[in-house]
Amino acid sequence: MISPKKYAKAAKVPPNGFKTSNEFFNYVFKDKEMIWMGQNTNHLHDHSEIAEAMIECINEGSYCKYPPPEGFPELKELVLKDLGLGDDFEALITAGGTESLYLCMNDILEPEDNAITCDPGYLIIDNFASRFACSVKSVPIYSSECDYKLTPDLVLENMDRDTRLISLIDPLNPLGSSYTRDEIKAFADIAVDHDVYLLHDITYRDFAREHHLAAEYAPEHTVTVYSFSKICGMAGLRIGAIVATSDIIESVKGIVINDLGTNVVSQAGAIAALKSKAKWVERIRNETLGNQKIIKAAVDEVEGAFLPVYPSNGNMMAIDVYETGVNPVDLTDYLLKRKIFVRQGAYTSKIFGDRYIRLSFSIPREQVEIFAENFVDVMEFLRPS
Amino acid sequence: MISPKKYAKAAKVPPNGFKTSNEFFNYVFKDKEMIWMGQNTNHLHDHSEIAEAMIECINEGSYCKYPPPEGFPELKELVLKDLGLGDDFEALITAGGTESLYLCMNDILEPEDNAITCDPGYLIIDNFASRFACSVKSVPIYSSECDYKLTPDLVLENMDRDTRLISLIDPLNPLGSSYTRDEIKAFADIAVDHDVYLLHDITYRDFAREHHLAAEYAPEHTVTVYSFSKICGMAGLRIGAIVATSDIIESVKGIVINDLGTNVVSQAGAIAALKSKAKWVERIRNETLGNQKIIKAAVDEVEGAFLPVYPSNGNMMAIDVYETGVNPVDLTDYLLKRKIFVRQGAYTSKIFGDRYIRLSFSIPREQVEIFAENFVDVMEFLRPS
Repeated sequence: MISPKKYAKAAKVPPNGFKTSNEFFNYVFKDKEMIWMGQNTNHLHDHSEIAEAMIECINEGSYCKYPPPEGFPELKELVLKDLGLGDDFEALITAGGTESLYLCMNDILEPEDNAITCDPGYLIIDNFASRFACSVKSVPIYSSECDYKLTPDLVLENMDRDTRLISLIDPLNPLGSSYTRDEIKAFADIAVDHDVYLLHDITYRDFAREHHLAAEYAPEHTVTVYSFSKICGMAGLRIGAIVATSDIIESVKGIVINDLGTNVVSQAGAIAALKSKAKWVERIRNETLGNQKIIKAAVDEVEGAFLPVYPSNGNMMAIDVYETGVNPVDLTDYLLKRKIFVRQGAYTSKIFGDRYIRLSFSIPREQVEIFAENFVDVMEFLRPS
Repeated sequence: MISPKKYAKAAKVPPNGFKTSNEFFNYVFKDKEMIWMGQNTNHLHDHSEIAEAMIECINEGSYCKYPPPEGFPELKELVLKDLGLGDDFEALITAGGTESLYLCMNDILEPEDNAITCDPGYLIIDNFASRFACSVKSVPIYSSECDYKLTPDLVLENMDRDTRLISLIDPLNPLGSSYTRDEIKAFADIAVDHDVYLLHDITYRDFAREHHLAAEYAPEHTVTVYSFSKICGMAGLRIGAIVATSDIIESVKGIVINDLGTNVVSQAGAIAALKSKAKWVERIRNETLGNQKIIKAAVDEVEGAFLPVYPSNGNMMAIDVYETGVNPVDLTDYLLKRKIFVRQGAYTSKIFGDRYIRLSFSIPREQVEIFAENFVDVMEFLRPS
């Protein structure tokens, strides 16, 4: 077996035949036949309202001007309305959830602090935290004992007096686990009692069966990272937000990078997305749930493979293949040859990368069926005899 | 008279009647009658190829996916070709020149270093430098003695052994001064001899009568900041690049923020812009030069007002009104009431903000004529009797 460390390293190496990761991504991006399950993006939009608004914005020609630096007021208000948060809160528009994460880390963390994250998790969060804090404690959560998520108990066990920030990805990329109201309340209590911040990354919120905002229970101790990439199908348009109390947002404004604002065309699309959301959000949720069932049936056919979290509350899930003896790098490579793009575990874990692949399923049902068929087939082929 | 310090403070206060700067910018952005001379943006494009490419990209629907993180290879190559730089160089696509500046500062500066900038200048550069360096030395250059620019001699006078970076905005926002080949060579020699980096911000390059790349003379000691905002008329699309040797770019990749790439629609527009540039660049250059003449004639009518740099090598210039006794804040406010958006000096100077207004002129000729008429009129009205 390859060691987990080697898997982590392998995640940074481009697949066979590509000189750089950038060339690989260019290849998969341009290949229109590729079944796109490798990036948690959402391919289920007909895009009518969103695309129309963007085209109208382009035809208007106002993209030659800089937009208001903090985002169009209309969009800022729509984001708050989408979350049901009131006047005490403010939304700062950013060039995507990634930039939001960076700015939050920069604003909150000081060189003597530490931050708590989880593994598996979204590794850029650890990277950003490590740029500003003294250390990052990534808590292993790949276990049924903690329901494959960072629990309030695990946080208390791992905190010390220098802990300044707790990162909650909710639902969790890559596993799809998420939190009940009581758990969110417990995190809020910890944040208030110990005067630490919750970084609540709600990128996948709208795919969840239920979802609760930490900002409601610990408003002064929560920064909420908001994204248009997933439920709105706008990943390539690079737009997101930070939502927090006005005091916190005022502080973030002091360390903003793009002081000339966020793409006007993306903002036009984002406004249309939120205005039309009620029309399409249920359909997308239902289609992703249906797609999960297809994948579950295929995984059940493969002895030794299982879904750690089912159903997932995100638009992605992990398939554990450890007991089958198949390694996730081979599995990923073989599926890619069949024009199915999924991710080996090391992309979202430094510890458990040898155990699973991650795949998203907010793609057309027919494509999920092709995956299901090929997954069973490739697993059979790769299984050590 | 208001002190320069108060002017600097005033630059951060929104104009009368607006609670926040963001609301002010939203107002001017939405007001279609506003004559837009306050942001160095370019309103002279018919936008045909650029707009068409972006609309095609939207209709294709691929914006639901993330682009290759470092930029589409085609765009990276077109940027290098545009600058005439060879295989030793690489372009990293960013969400605008501002992000490029931040990443360069982050990559180059260490806590013990200092950076040299100039005043007047683009103040966000000083802000970014101060986030990573020990100190920023902003050299006063608002004088005919140094031709209103940071000269090699001034740099040598202001350097010490902790100097790590010299910022050259070329052409210079806000004054429009720029460098000869000999001057650029002299800067390159300084950089190599003292092992410091030149941050060569070439945002306004294509408006200049002549322009020379420091990267040609000191490749290992230059980072070039590239923008699509100005000559391509794409400010609101937030796209730019960092160009440097592959070694430097490799280092920058280690501290990148938006690791999920830059807006795919903007990249489609940028590709079309560079492919079609030869068709429109001369027209835009000629129109901006013609517009400068109209402004010059108006300024000549106003006793005590003058243009520090004429003709400007950028798409913006400063009008010095100090001797007239009119203060730039009042002038800016009165022009705004007449729906002409220009900037008081304090927006680009901490020292000389009481002396000038800055205005851009890459707008239709008829609008420049309206400015010229109103400038003479408002100056007459505001002049102390």
